[in-house]
Amino acid sequence: MSFIRSVVPEFEAANAKYAASFNKGHLPLPPGRKVAIVACMDARLDPAKVLGLEEGDAHVIRNAGGRTIDALRSLVISQQLLGTREIVIVHHTDCGMLTFSDAELKSKVRSDLGEDADHIAFLSFTDLRQSIIDDIAILKKSPLVLDVPTTGYIYDVKTGKAEKVKE
Amino acid sequence: MSFIRSVVPEFEAANAKYAASFNKGHLPLPPGRKVAIVACMDARLDPAKVLGLEEGDAHVIRNAGGRTIDALRSLVISQQLLGTREIVIVHHTDCGMLTFSDAELKSKVRSDLGEDADHIAFLSFTDLRQSIIDDIAILKKSPLVLDVPTTGYIYDVKTGKAEKVKE
Repeated sequence: MSFIRSVVPEFEAANAKYAASFNKGHLPLPPGRKVAIVACMDARLDPAKVLGLEEGDAHVIRNAGGRTIDALRSLVISQQLLGTREIVIVHHTDCGMLTFSDAELKSKVRSDLGEDADHIAFLSFTDLRQSIIDDIAILKKSPLVLDVPTTGYIYDVKTGKAEKVKE
Repeated sequence: MSFIRSVVPEFEAANAKYAASFNKGHLPLPPGRKVAIVACMDARLDPAKVLGLEEGDAHVIRNAGGRTIDALRSLVISQQLLGTREIVIVHHTDCGMLTFSDAELKSKVRSDLGEDADHIAFLSFTDLRQSIIDDIAILKKSPLVLDVPTTGYIYDVKTGKAEKVKE
């Protein structure tokens, strides 16, 4: 893949700049604000900027769609070992998860890669608001997740606003 | 859990401020820099600051430890549907994953929650450098992940520096 310019030199230059003025070396391991965020991996969504997080504040778990069922391992570690006692979920408008079905992606993987992905639930969805309601329900039903305050937002990638989802 | 002060009012105030000066509403869905980051959920690690990411640049997948096996679903979506062609992994010093064994956490879940977590691989590790090498190897072996440039870093939470891991 030598025709693609790697991001690595730019990332390393950016890191040298960040480290040069770094003054957060004293922070403890457990999140200071005792919250775990579950958010989509989307490039346009920066949870720290959107919610006002500083280094040390919160666990940030991110995956395609910000699906809580795929965050379960991390949430158990966050709550049982590192003391978080609140969960905030962030999905967003124009999400890639609204653009395909699991069957379509499995078919693409089969034709493009010659591989079977039938063992993976890709967790695409068709209704953004419902995806938040479903993801809160999954947490509330899981015996491995503590019954803690849980709030869901839809982040609007056009306006920067996070709108609370009412159940 | 009413004795815990929720972060929600602070998050909403921070978001109102972010949205007030928001000027990124034009960004396309596919990541502009065609890279997917896999990083630990640790509160002290802000991948955007550490690597110099702007909104729109990169998918950011985060979980406990930044384990790639737990990022597979998201990586397939990132590559097959949204065109990323590079992977950067970020683990870090003083990681919580170094502080427990899977057996210990399963035992804690059993005694504290009265639940069986034997079906979950918590993916703790004992050697930080090896965890990066293992996680790159998992990607290289997976037939569902494209053979793209892949780089691993250990982020030092005391200095802000990301050190490249040589294989």
